Amino acid sequence: MTMLRTFRAFAHTLPSLSPRVVREPLRPLVRKMAASTHAPVLKQPVKLACIQLASGPDKAANLARARDKVIEAARSGAKVIVLPECFNSPYGCDYFPSYAEQLHPLPPPPERSPSFAALSAMARDTSTYLIGGSIPEVVTTTTAAAAGGAAGSTTTTTTYYNTSLVFGPDGNLLATHRKVHLFDIDIPGRIRFQESDVLSPGNKVTVVDLPGYGLIGLGVCYDIRFPELATIAARRGCFALVYPGAFNLTTGPLHWRLLGQARAVDNQLYVVLCSPARDMSATYHAWGHSLIVDPMAQVLVEAEEGEAIVSVEIDGAKIEEARSGIPLRDQRRFDVYPDISNGEGVKFEDEGQV
Amino acid sequence: MTMLRTFRAFAHTLPSLSPRVVREPLRPLVRKMAASTHAPVLKQPVKLACIQLASGPDKAANLARARDKVIEAARSGAKVIVLPECFNSPYGCDYFPSYAEQLHPLPPPPERSPSFAALSAMARDTSTYLIGGSIPEVVTTTTAAAAGGAAGSTTTTTTYYNTSLVFGPDGNLLATHRKVHLFDIDIPGRIRFQESDVLSPGNKVTVVDLPGYGLIGLGVCYDIRFPELATIAARRGCFALVYPGAFNLTTGPLHWRLLGQARAVDNQLYVVLCSPARDMSATYHAWGHSLIVDPMAQVLVEAEEGEAIVSVEIDGAKIEEARSGIPLRDQRRFDVYPDISNGEGVKFEDEGQV
Repeated sequence: MTMLRTFRAFAHTLPSLSPRVVREPLRPLVRKMAASTHAPVLKQPVKLACIQLASGPDKAANLARARDKVIEAARSGAKVIVLPECFNSPYGCDYFPSYAEQLHPLPPPPERSPSFAALSAMARDTSTYLIGGSIPEVVTTTTAAAAGGAAGSTTTTTTYYNTSLVFGPDGNLLATHRKVHLFDIDIPGRIRFQESDVLSPGNKVTVVDLPGYGLIGLGVCYDIRFPELATIAARRGCFALVYPGAFNLTTGPLHWRLLGQARAVDNQLYVVLCSPARDMSATYHAWGHSLIVDPMAQVLVEAEEGEAIVSVEIDGAKIEEARSGIPLRDQRRFDVYPDISNGEGVKFEDEGQV
Repeated sequence: MTMLRTFRAFAHTLPSLSPRVVREPLRPLVRKMAASTHAPVLKQPVKLACIQLASGPDKAANLARARDKVIEAARSGAKVIVLPECFNSPYGCDYFPSYAEQLHPLPPPPERSPSFAALSAMARDTSTYLIGGSIPEVVTTTTAAAAGGAAGSTTTTTTYYNTSLVFGPDGNLLATHRKVHLFDIDIPGRIRFQESDVLSPGNKVTVVDLPGYGLIGLGVCYDIRFPELATIAARRGCFALVYPGAFNLTTGPLHWRLLGQARAVDNQLYVVLCSPARDMSATYHAWGHSLIVDPMAQVLVEAEEGEAIVSVEIDGAKIEEARSGIPLRDQRRFDVYPDISNGEGVKFEDEGQV
């Protein structure tokens, strides 16, 4: 396990509200905090771990390796564990169809979705919340042929998604998130990738309740470039934004860490980016560098490129401290611009989801 | 003049659309660019300069020093020049009232606003666009006393703002921006500052046309923490976001550079942050580190803490290159979340502005 501690936010403790302090002349901070009506978004401290998994072409081996690492993270005290994007398979348009599993109708039997079964068992056996990175998902729909077709003929449509599955400590599925923004980029001479050649997008913002702790916002990889998802999740009360993601050797050094810190500084919560380990023998070279950012946008832990577990105890008091110190939440000017988190324009349900 | 070049984005040139290229099998990038209907947001390359000015308590000396530096920047070829927040005065609530100038009704005569006159002359004499940092502004309104007051008595209200003035090469005022988000923070043991003890906020998003070049979005300092202003300005077609700002020795190292890069990575345009030089004999210690970020979020130039001019030629092709390579503009999912730049919720006029 490689754990690279980078730099830390300066440490503060919240001022005590003991009688001694209260008898003193009312200090501005105390006045502000007493006036605060903000409930804590993280109900208790929790150890959070990212598993920067080394996956290969053998799905069964990937699932077994993921299980070993989840157990290792749980033994070290992690209660919320994150796996990477496409942790069960190689990442690439050529691979999505052959590795895809049919999840719906939920829950799928193990023979239909071995990855679902494996994730559920990992969460249950370790009594942890498990954000199961993402897996390629397939949906096959059969409809009656259009008028003019032969009587009784049908049309079959196959659709693929990049889907994240979240399980609770009882092994039950809590939420799914299909990647909303497909990774279609073309930086000449560096990288071209078109997920939309194969995949279809999800159609919702995903906020997941982890009972006992609070809410997290969930996106997959390229979703992090679209700050709306993060803003909405944060304003709906999340304590963390979690992005399983596989950046690459072009966009990784340019933007991976920056985007993690950007979402943290604007939203004042924890941000968790979990990448696969780098495999230079694969067709896609993941950046690695899984990291956890605190509510003051400081990187608390960051992996290098190899297989690793990075973990840290996160604390709701740090969120409150950031938000009390720099009280953006009370200073936004929704009389000058709209509040994107508010109103009917935000979709929390995927109406097209099968 | 200190000019610190940090790291650069990898350089690309846009593919030629010469007949030789067109005769080749249609490459995806060419197909995309041919389909692009996006007009260039920066019409021609332009050299942009930030003046990290050393100001002191003598307003006339500050204005003279600013003039010298603007002339120096213009002589080196800069056509768009930015001064820092409160460039004409020390920064602090104790100073705002005594340094404030009455701008309205516009344009003020020189004796009413020497800073307005000085900025106008600098822009005209150098034939440059000048974003005049910000200055403390005062508005005095006199109204008839409420019923019950003595006949003929009046009530005078004095309001202060932190106001940026933008001038064109003819010396005419193009726009004003009153800081929308006042700098009220309290990080225990580090810094407490409450602009709202003295200042009132502006009430609009400011987008300014610099004829011949294009649009810029303008905010003052703490405005940068509120991404809505940047998002709206970018989606309205700006080529740069300009923030005169005075971060400090706590928030500077934590967030100054990060916020500049965050606004660039999400909006794919140039971001310009112009600070005063650091003066440890002043009551407020500015961070310095004026910088210019490119549309791939790489810092092109960055000052240290002393007086400096940092400048760089910026190019609309780099904006188009970033947006073609990572085409966020075409990938946003306004069916899943609203477009904050669209609709009646955005105020471009300050209805209360005197």
